[in-house]
Amino acid sequence: MNTYQRIVLASRPRGEVTPDNFRLETAEVPALADGQLLVRTHYLSLDPYMRGRMSEAKTYAASQQLGETMIGGTVGEVVASQHPKYPVGTFVAGMNGWAELGVSDGAGLRKLNTSTIPLSAHLGAVGMPGMTAWYGLNRIMNVKPGETVCVSAASGAVGSVVGQLAKLKGCRVVGIAGGLEKCAYVVDELGFDACVDYKAGQLRDDLKAAAPGGIDAIFENVGGDVFDAALARTNAFARVALCGMIAGYNGEDIPLRSARLLLTNRIALRGFIVTEHLDEWPAGLAELGALVASGQLKYRETVAQGLAAAPEAFIGLLKGRNFGKQLVSLL
Amino acid sequence: MNTYQRIVLASRPRGEVTPDNFRLETAEVPALADGQLLVRTHYLSLDPYMRGRMSEAKTYAASQQLGETMIGGTVGEVVASQHPKYPVGTFVAGMNGWAELGVSDGAGLRKLNTSTIPLSAHLGAVGMPGMTAWYGLNRIMNVKPGETVCVSAASGAVGSVVGQLAKLKGCRVVGIAGGLEKCAYVVDELGFDACVDYKAGQLRDDLKAAAPGGIDAIFENVGGDVFDAALARTNAFARVALCGMIAGYNGEDIPLRSARLLLTNRIALRGFIVTEHLDEWPAGLAELGALVASGQLKYRETVAQGLAAAPEAFIGLLKGRNFGKQLVSLL
Repeated sequence: MNTYQRIVLASRPRGEVTPDNFRLETAEVPALADGQLLVRTHYLSLDPYMRGRMSEAKTYAASQQLGETMIGGTVGEVVASQHPKYPVGTFVAGMNGWAELGVSDGAGLRKLNTSTIPLSAHLGAVGMPGMTAWYGLNRIMNVKPGETVCVSAASGAVGSVVGQLAKLKGCRVVGIAGGLEKCAYVVDELGFDACVDYKAGQLRDDLKAAAPGGIDAIFENVGGDVFDAALARTNAFARVALCGMIAGYNGEDIPLRSARLLLTNRIALRGFIVTEHLDEWPAGLAELGALVASGQLKYRETVAQGLAAAPEAFIGLLKGRNFGKQLVSLL
Repeated sequence: MNTYQRIVLASRPRGEVTPDNFRLETAEVPALADGQLLVRTHYLSLDPYMRGRMSEAKTYAASQQLGETMIGGTVGEVVASQHPKYPVGTFVAGMNGWAELGVSDGAGLRKLNTSTIPLSAHLGAVGMPGMTAWYGLNRIMNVKPGETVCVSAASGAVGSVVGQLAKLKGCRVVGIAGGLEKCAYVVDELGFDACVDYKAGQLRDDLKAAAPGGIDAIFENVGGDVFDAALARTNAFARVALCGMIAGYNGEDIPLRSARLLLTNRIALRGFIVTEHLDEWPAGLAELGALVASGQLKYRETVAQGLAAAPEAFIGLLKGRNFGKQLVSLL
């Protein structure tokens, strides 16, 4: 295998992402220098944050350069190594991007337990999405038993973990998701107390019925009307972990209409990015890994096949077409 | 003196407050029961929060009842007493409302130091507005020397204290106020580093020039466009003390257009009401009182004469016509 495939950013989207923003390329497999290793990617993770990187505008990270491999979290196996800590056969998580192979010097790699935790879960419930849920719940929402928690994008990679962890803490958990199938999964499989279908057209009424005692903490992934509806049901001193605003991922403004409620309900809100809190990961991942291994933490995946399928899968993710964690299998 | 005057809520405003929402009444001075005292009000405080109480909708406090004396903070002198702790001649702060006299059993009264602190200052820099500034700055904004702080309604009773306290902590302080006269006062008298006139029509450009290194902490009194402009200049991990939204005090929505910045700049925001943190008042008021007594903390007052002038003064306050703390002298 002297060559491998990768996908680069061909152009920046104007509004919605389109397939021609990406370009599939064939690259030469580089020779390894001392201290380097080569990872064969098994799974690529697709995540909403990538949309921000595709734009020229600075968000919280430098934008992705044109012509470079698309950024992305990956799990795979070391297939060649000049690095003593990562022998051939080691399973690792890293940021090899949208590519079949990646060269690394070990920086930022995590060795993975694949004996009790499925490899792909290290990109989901036991990876960045799981830690995002863990951090928001434990470091921002500070929930107490008996409190009511509201989670948007509840069937997704992050939301599903938030709700299950909150249930383990003794909270009443209300999800918001798009469509009856996702809502049924959230309640029947994940064990949320209720799930409201925002596509049904009566979000505020349905949320009132699902959270009759009001909402004490929100984990927000969506923004816009969904966020406003949840805020409208907050109790005094509610906490908001602001994780994402996928409603506005194409760059349009997503105004918060009910900003006044932040004041009148004395709400504490914090936006966060979990990769800025890496010191929390070892403890959080250990907890999440144990819960997955014991079956207490469930998850669902949508897996696209082959690198060439990544652009369409990513576009689907931004539109909520995935169900659970969106992956691309590169095997 | 067998009767006194008071102002009651005659009707709830529909949109803007009008004089006929109030009614001046004459009431009988009650006989004192054991444990009661009578306070002759010297100054009545007018504050934006009163607008919320005039509406039927529950905000953070129960709404004001029709036909009852308008709520309000007051300072005055005990003129008759059946209470051993409050002899005649004691100066006290309380919540006697829009009335020349008030009966109290001592609950919620504060005895005042009038030897080094002017009586009226206990309704401003050494009272609720001062504590509001103190709490937001010390408990939410957590500023460090060298950071840039932005304060809206900078010449007002709260904003003026926020900025001066932040200067004492070694911050660069940028105010936002309405009109050249207020801005000149904020810089020349209060010692802010800069003040931007939002009425000049180029708030965003002017704020960029005044805070070239970005904004690390915001004390927000206004909401709406003013808040959006400040958020647009925030640095990563900025803190926001959300104290008021006077831009929307007539009940209209005041959307936050740049909600996305809360996420991308990882902002920590908290709405608060200082009367829910009474345990902080003794230490805070001691600090504020010492600063006023030593001349390090300056303030300005607009004083309306006589109870009958209170409604127009209050309407002016909501429109920003006052300059500094709005009081009504009832002597």
